[in-house]
Amino acid sequence: INRLDQQIQFILEIDKLKSVLRRTTLINEARRENSAEHSWHIALMAVLLIEHANQAIDLPRVVKMLLIHDIVEIDAGDTFAYSGVSKIDQSAKERIAAERLFSLLPDDQAVELRALWEEFEAMQTPEANFANAVDRLMPVLHNYHNSGGTWRESIVTLEKVITRVSPIGEGSAALWEFTQTILADAVNRGLITR
Amino acid sequence: INRLDQQIQFILEIDKLKSVLRRTTLINEARRENSAEHSWHIALMAVLLIEHANQAIDLPRVVKMLLIHDIVEIDAGDTFAYSGVSKIDQSAKERIAAERLFSLLPDDQAVELRALWEEFEAMQTPEANFANAVDRLMPVLHNYHNSGGTWRESIVTLEKVITRVSPIGEGSAALWEFTQTILADAVNRGLITR
Repeated sequence: INRLDQQIQFILEIDKLKSVLRRTTLINEARRENSAEHSWHIALMAVLLIEHANQAIDLPRVVKMLLIHDIVEIDAGDTFAYSGVSKIDQSAKERIAAERLFSLLPDDQAVELRALWEEFEAMQTPEANFANAVDRLMPVLHNYHNSGGTWRESIVTLEKVITRVSPIGEGSAALWEFTQTILADAVNRGLITR
Repeated sequence: INRLDQQIQFILEIDKLKSVLRRTTLINEARRENSAEHSWHIALMAVLLIEHANQAIDLPRVVKMLLIHDIVEIDAGDTFAYSGVSKIDQSAKERIAAERLFSLLPDDQAVELRALWEEFEAMQTPEANFANAVDRLMPVLHNYHNSGGTWRESIVTLEKVITRVSPIGEGSAALWEFTQTILADAVNRGLITR
């Protein structure tokens, strides 16, 4: 099997990410969002908001990271941020998924994308921090514009939201300040439980 | 209104691309694909297939182009490749859409993204040629793996398919060769009308 055939097999396989549903719904719409369209949205968000990153970073690497950050969900499923699912169990499932999926690619690309995915998960580089910042800001925007969305649905407390979204500040102080303004207003309007 | 607020307004607005349906369906699934998840798929496809481009090109620019190439459809709708819709009418609608949508952004970003969109449409640069190549190859893969998909649904002739997809060769001779193999097999299997 040649390189192009391997690449095409991977491209066909990841079509399945369009069928992985997140808990979040589209803005002003009842339909739940899938992880493929979400990945598009935050990749473009990173392009547009890069100037707010805490330091000069490699945008193409951030975008690549965001395009692939969720593909392990094809096997492992999406985990709702405020669910009680054990992070250790989920992480084990995702590693097995990464093994299967990336190995469809030619070795050099498998290694590169796997490393990018690990980097995103580890949140230890400026690029991973910024990528995680947009990934965590987006559901805040969705919930805020959907009358509370999953915050209200699951009666999430402000404390839990803060724990979930505070890594935004590691990637961008400006986006973190913006997020805090939104959260304060969401609490005032009863969208998040104090 | 400050830059960040303008950027966020645009990001919220383009959520609507997730509700623009293409004619193509997901692989092995009945649901029609939307233009946001399609944009994710081909942006990642470009990342993976860049080595097959006819010449050295700027991948980050290709990816940006693909992330925004369809957003005018939020106002103008998707046009089926084999529909009878006048290209001139559609193009006029898309220009008005581009005017409205990109102007939500700060001026410098509006100018940059508008130019990238125009470049994609004009197909006169190596980056635009490669971006168009993956955009045109993807529905071939979908139809081929969906028992003919929209080719059969609309009884499209090989001649019309060739006219639609031959620009693939401008971006990548390797992908064009690959496409021709698929099309020959699709004709043999009766998925495309000879």
